[in-house]
Amino acid sequence: MMSTSKANPSHPRHARDVTNWDLQTDVAIIGFGGAGGCAAIEAADAGAEVLLFELASASGGSTAMSSAEIYMGGSGGTRVQRACGFEDSTEDMVTYMMMSAGPQADEAKIRNYCENSVEHFDWLCNLGVPFKDSFHEERAIMCLTDDGLLYTGSEKAYPFRQQAKPCPRGHNLYIEGDNGGPLFMKIINENVASRDAITVHYETRALTLIVDDEDTVVGIVVRQGNQELNVRARKGVILCAGGFNMNEEMVQKYAPKLLAGNEPIGNPGDTGTGIMMGMAVGGAAINMHEGFISIPYYPPASITYGIAINDKGQRFINEDVYHARLGQAVLDQPGDRFYFILTVEQYGDYEKFNFMGAGIAGTGETVDELEQELGLRRGTLEGTLRIYNEDCEAGEDSQYHKAPEWLQKMEPPLVALDITPGRGVFVPYFTLGGLDTLTTGEVVDPQRNVIPGLFAAGRTACGIVRRAEGYSSGMSVGDATFSGRMAGRQAAARQPD
Amino acid sequence: MMSTSKANPSHPRHARDVTNWDLQTDVAIIGFGGAGGCAAIEAADAGAEVLLFELASASGGSTAMSSAEIYMGGSGGTRVQRACGFEDSTEDMVTYMMMSAGPQADEAKIRNYCENSVEHFDWLCNLGVPFKDSFHEERAIMCLTDDGLLYTGSEKAYPFRQQAKPCPRGHNLYIEGDNGGPLFMKIINENVASRDAITVHYETRALTLIVDDEDTVVGIVVRQGNQELNVRARKGVILCAGGFNMNEEMVQKYAPKLLAGNEPIGNPGDTGTGIMMGMAVGGAAINMHEGFISIPYYPPASITYGIAINDKGQRFINEDVYHARLGQAVLDQPGDRFYFILTVEQYGDYEKFNFMGAGIAGTGETVDELEQELGLRRGTLEGTLRIYNEDCEAGEDSQYHKAPEWLQKMEPPLVALDITPGRGVFVPYFTLGGLDTLTTGEVVDPQRNVIPGLFAAGRTACGIVRRAEGYSSGMSVGDATFSGRMAGRQAAARQPD
Repeated sequence: MMSTSKANPSHPRHARDVTNWDLQTDVAIIGFGGAGGCAAIEAADAGAEVLLFELASASGGSTAMSSAEIYMGGSGGTRVQRACGFEDSTEDMVTYMMMSAGPQADEAKIRNYCENSVEHFDWLCNLGVPFKDSFHEERAIMCLTDDGLLYTGSEKAYPFRQQAKPCPRGHNLYIEGDNGGPLFMKIINENVASRDAITVHYETRALTLIVDDEDTVVGIVVRQGNQELNVRARKGVILCAGGFNMNEEMVQKYAPKLLAGNEPIGNPGDTGTGIMMGMAVGGAAINMHEGFISIPYYPPASITYGIAINDKGQRFINEDVYHARLGQAVLDQPGDRFYFILTVEQYGDYEKFNFMGAGIAGTGETVDELEQELGLRRGTLEGTLRIYNEDCEAGEDSQYHKAPEWLQKMEPPLVALDITPGRGVFVPYFTLGGLDTLTTGEVVDPQRNVIPGLFAAGRTACGIVRRAEGYSSGMSVGDATFSGRMAGRQAAARQPD
Repeated sequence: MMSTSKANPSHPRHARDVTNWDLQTDVAIIGFGGAGGCAAIEAADAGAEVLLFELASASGGSTAMSSAEIYMGGSGGTRVQRACGFEDSTEDMVTYMMMSAGPQADEAKIRNYCENSVEHFDWLCNLGVPFKDSFHEERAIMCLTDDGLLYTGSEKAYPFRQQAKPCPRGHNLYIEGDNGGPLFMKIINENVASRDAITVHYETRALTLIVDDEDTVVGIVVRQGNQELNVRARKGVILCAGGFNMNEEMVQKYAPKLLAGNEPIGNPGDTGTGIMMGMAVGGAAINMHEGFISIPYYPPASITYGIAINDKGQRFINEDVYHARLGQAVLDQPGDRFYFILTVEQYGDYEKFNFMGAGIAGTGETVDELEQELGLRRGTLEGTLRIYNEDCEAGEDSQYHKAPEWLQKMEPPLVALDITPGRGVFVPYFTLGGLDTLTTGEVVDPQRNVIPGLFAAGRTACGIVRRAEGYSSGMSVGDATFSGRMAGRQAAARQPD
């Protein structure tokens, strides 16, 4: 059976089987989202000729679908941070991101990201990405105003605040509403279009990598219409083809816990082919079991005054964390049901937002009545509330360390929202695994040897973000754009043997 | 750079670079533990010529280091099960193992295992593996008597007992003490030695696979002394080289949560080279983040009467589960400390066993005193015990469903054992990820296309066992020996193109 009979991402084509190079370039980039666009710009600006291939009819990727918040800071602060009165330290940012990524943190990658984050902000500004020098105070999943800066993670929550001085690092584009993504990609698109060294091919599907007899990546097979094209990439191929969130079979195999969610977030093209192409030439796919999974329980921010409980009536987290940290905690808890317990005041204008779509599981004029409605064992929620209320009076959450500003004694009547995944609540998810890369974007094998000629960025690579429990909004677009640049620069500078 | 300059598991050698085949055989098997030994026997009995390569100076692998309990049943029961009065159903066994493996279960593999388990028992008996027709009643981590059968998992615990009729399936070799592993491998060794078609090479390290121009696996490079040998395997190579438990860098990369443990269990050769060799030719490594991790809190079985709590004074599990299920639950809980709370009677002869090596964290003449000693918030353990004791009186654990036989009201004085990982307690661990294979042992790529000529078994493959929370003793040696047989048979039958 000839390997060339049917191009397949799990099986590279051999250069010796290529009779004709249909296209030739220095750098071939797969995927024109945030990562691919930034990779192309950097590679072109470093003097390389670039072919950029996109499956869809237009640029965008998952970046255009996102809020395009960008997580940046350190080095004393970005222009926006400083204007808003925040002096950010690189070490605080490193510490926060290391805690976020947990035991699987890639310290070299995080350090490189944090140390160059202000420079990245300036680079984006130079492309024309606009940020307003204003701070958004309210706790929000996404910024619906045009403010430039907000807290987008668990920076102010335990245990992060114990080890890293809190600082807001979520940078929001200067546009009203949740419209950052399209604006961001419009700007990237204009920058790509203005560079003669970059040629974009839309409606082009990447099929598989091409390797020579030394297993160096020398090109890629793409399909346009019914035609397969062999593309020679003299300096390298950069895979920016997204993650595997839309490939349910692959999610089932690698990250089955995510299927507790009900809404895969991302681009339809996130089918894992970029990752599979890299694996097929020996690239190591890492962190494949991890993903962002969330119960987006705010706004309104007043929900934070309430308590989250499991089906034993126990609290299990400080409720002032980022929503994905709560999402992960729910998955890690034993039990079949999860509730947010609120007073009528805390419930407030929940229905106006109802962002997570949780239904009311029960109400009670007394705690006992609510326990019965929820089928909780009698006395369990009562015990939890007794301790919580004592702690509220004392001004310190002795058990879970929710910040004092969110402590508010809870008296009946009470409302319980059903936040159990699978019972109607919105549980978005996306994958956080991908090809292992160096800070340069070079793809490595399981022993961390570089695979010559192969680069990856954005969600095709495993970047700085590694876990739901440490996720903060803006880390994905931050990583995509920054890692794209690293890969573009390195590929352009590569001198093949 | 020539790929042959230094053989490396992450980089296959190309057959076109092989100038001389130093050895030739039908089937080459890497690793002479339980999987490799059984693979060799099956392949030889199917008419194939076999070369079996072992890194160490003797056979054994991790199987010889284990208790060699073997998880078998279904089809009405093995001879031992039936003699002990247990009629086992294949469906109950499948249900139990599917629950054990959780969302990442491989149903085809589990069904194949369960449907052929009694046949596997008979096959082992025919090799001379002895099992006594007697049942061991006591709850144990390992069987120190010569009894042939015992419960070795969570079969009788919630939620398993709700869905699958409990049946003991741990088969223990007919030998006193924890000596099953050496006896088992002695018998396998004798069976290998008695087959002329099998030649064993000890002190031989596998370096990398050899592929032809169609990327079919056609051999393997091994090293004996300072000499590299190119081994031609006409029908296939079977990787039975263990897991990656002893490669700390690889554990850190793929399964960092396991490093909460303090004792990697297995053979020193479990460095992941088999898995890496498979990945290098396009094989998919799956379930790489999962592992067995345990707090082996019994014997004495009387510990089961106590309750496990976190640093909020909350219970979080039914304490009658298998010890690794508790180990995983501890990892998934928030908090910094974990305790086993016991009455003085329940503590009993703990010190005589002290298998887990947990120290006493505190004692209390009253609950209040114990809370203070443990630094628990006042009233938390008290509330937990109040509910637990009410449930004990009612004969039903309303919260965690510990079986009624283990419910015993707890009155002070109380003792707390510190079961926090990292504080002295014994926390063994091993990896449960490996190459994805079909039931035949054929290694597949991420799209489940077979990689021609490549097979894997035992811990190098990802088998029937997928999670600590569903682990049962005997599943590993069961899987190793059974999957070795499947691979040996399939390889022997293969007709290369």
